[in-house]
Amino acid sequence: MNSLTIDTSTNKYNVFVGTKLRFKTASFLEKQYKNILIVTDDQVANHYLDDVKNSFSTEINLYSVVVPAGESSKSQEQYFNVISRAIEVGLDRQSLIIALGGGMVGDLAGFAASTYMRGIDYIQVPTSILAHDSSVGGKVAINHTEGKNLIGSFYPPQAVIYDVETLHSLPEKEVRSGYAEIVKHGLISDEIFFHQVLDTKLSSKIPDEVLTDHLLKGINVKATIVQNDEKENNVRKYLNFGHTLGHALEANLGYGQITHGEAVAIGMLFALRVSEKVYGVKLPYQPLHNWLVTNNYPLHLPTQEIDPLVNRMKKDKKSINNLVQMVLLKSVGQPTVEKIEDELLKSELDEFMRELVNH
Amino acid sequence: MNSLTIDTSTNKYNVFVGTKLRFKTASFLEKQYKNILIVTDDQVANHYLDDVKNSFSTEINLYSVVVPAGESSKSQEQYFNVISRAIEVGLDRQSLIIALGGGMVGDLAGFAASTYMRGIDYIQVPTSILAHDSSVGGKVAINHTEGKNLIGSFYPPQAVIYDVETLHSLPEKEVRSGYAEIVKHGLISDEIFFHQVLDTKLSSKIPDEVLTDHLLKGINVKATIVQNDEKENNVRKYLNFGHTLGHALEANLGYGQITHGEAVAIGMLFALRVSEKVYGVKLPYQPLHNWLVTNNYPLHLPTQEIDPLVNRMKKDKKSINNLVQMVLLKSVGQPTVEKIEDELLKSELDEFMRELVNH
Repeated sequence: MNSLTIDTSTNKYNVFVGTKLRFKTASFLEKQYKNILIVTDDQVANHYLDDVKNSFSTEINLYSVVVPAGESSKSQEQYFNVISRAIEVGLDRQSLIIALGGGMVGDLAGFAASTYMRGIDYIQVPTSILAHDSSVGGKVAINHTEGKNLIGSFYPPQAVIYDVETLHSLPEKEVRSGYAEIVKHGLISDEIFFHQVLDTKLSSKIPDEVLTDHLLKGINVKATIVQNDEKENNVRKYLNFGHTLGHALEANLGYGQITHGEAVAIGMLFALRVSEKVYGVKLPYQPLHNWLVTNNYPLHLPTQEIDPLVNRMKKDKKSINNLVQMVLLKSVGQPTVEKIEDELLKSELDEFMRELVNH
Repeated sequence: MNSLTIDTSTNKYNVFVGTKLRFKTASFLEKQYKNILIVTDDQVANHYLDDVKNSFSTEINLYSVVVPAGESSKSQEQYFNVISRAIEVGLDRQSLIIALGGGMVGDLAGFAASTYMRGIDYIQVPTSILAHDSSVGGKVAINHTEGKNLIGSFYPPQAVIYDVETLHSLPEKEVRSGYAEIVKHGLISDEIFFHQVLDTKLSSKIPDEVLTDHLLKGINVKATIVQNDEKENNVRKYLNFGHTLGHALEANLGYGQITHGEAVAIGMLFALRVSEKVYGVKLPYQPLHNWLVTNNYPLHLPTQEIDPLVNRMKKDKKSINNLVQMVLLKSVGQPTVEKIEDELLKSELDEFMRELVNH
């Protein structure tokens, strides 16, 4: 088992990565909790809910709430559903919420924890590769029909307990989704790490040691940035590389039609292209494109109109005075943030989308 | 104009108290905001919305959202209504929300600000006496059908701008509601202040200088406690004097049937009674009771069953492991927190409620 410690302005928490950790969930907690509510989804519940439950002594009051799997559960309705369940089972301020699942569950349960009685403890037990990104850093949120993560908090967990064994049962599109964020962590930090990731073939079973290595490196990139800028005033924005167009695509296609990481993958290609244009540099657009094609990322989207996407991007939380802000790269490992004029944005996006469709 | 400064873990903000401040709202802001959303209710809007709006230069994009007056607007629906309006008018992370109104507006708008894009700036422009309590300290929340303020955040404003002139148009029951919290601030801090408040007759117009003095003293009590314990781990609980039964009464009668302060007034009487019992001391139960009667506080409630009230109290955020916690007084100015055994709670409550009904 590996671990690393993350410092925030309000607490310090450990991230544990290893095999079969879910069977020992209780042993990682630093406090005694008498009442615990496990939030999970209907797919994860079938596989792992009992494993986590059985790690606790029978004296503890353990409850669960199961939401439908999929991004569409990051909704107003499911948020109030979780809160109502917490009230129903009698959670008090000394209680714990456990987020058992992928990024959706972590965001939903974390946001519920951050606002239930003005904030109670929660831990993350991620069951997806994508959640290596979302479970660390304390950003929790639900979606609005007008955009992703528009309602949320900065609220760090008390611990992250990552059982690598749960990742082997992921469907291939979820592996692709998670690996897009690992690629991102490579691109914004370290050329060697980036190329190591491009050496990985996602369709065959990724060896445990490779997976553990990639997760830890990815978490480390994220943790380092988050420690320097918890509230996203500055360098934390770099983590949004690929996300400006990614979020717009996801929202426009309808959540669940394309995974988060698959949308971010297309967004990263676009960001590389805009970076090359703005800085006049050569970046690994083609190697990334090839890897995405080899690993069956969906690049042949239904023809996209530009205007709805641009409007979505302007509603992004990072937009300033109606100008889209994008994370660009001057080189691999050297991210920057730029406001992009509408004209440049539209012409590049138009050309990019047409190329993807015709490729 | 008087002012005091409040230090929190995340920011430092000023509370300004004086006459006609609403006409100068813009001048109290320390940052430039390009987009501002004013949240208010349909009663306050008629009186003061234009005054606040006109304090801003025409270059600023000013929007407003008006919710129905009354505690029932601290709801899931109105919360999402405010968030949707913020998205619709294009508020970004550099934007401001202004809470113009009483405690309901402050709590609703503050909670929306705390979760919109994971938190944007807001200021409080209170228009009720009660809001001297709620606008200071950064506690924001909405209600759940199962209890008050069960969903919320700790999220301090950027400023509080208190125009005493707006308080003269308050209906009498709102004056009673606000003065109950002033009485509370006296009881938990200072016998002299407490008796000064009991010298006030609420049915005639309270002179501006008396009102300003009481508000500043009340805010000072609250601010001092909040600075020592922002997240309510310790002394901040003292501010809940009278609130354990008060919240239960409010919820049980249905929000809006009795004002918050009126419910707290009854709760304070009960807390004095339990304090006398637990500590074997003599407290000013009778002087407070007399003052409440003189000032037309509703003490003749419809006969109340005990069990629903006790169940509500157990769902209170301060209850621990299903035991009700109450703030008691060892003497005026010397609050404590005690867990109350069910048996004592029920017998005292039963006797108290029967006395009130029969009085």
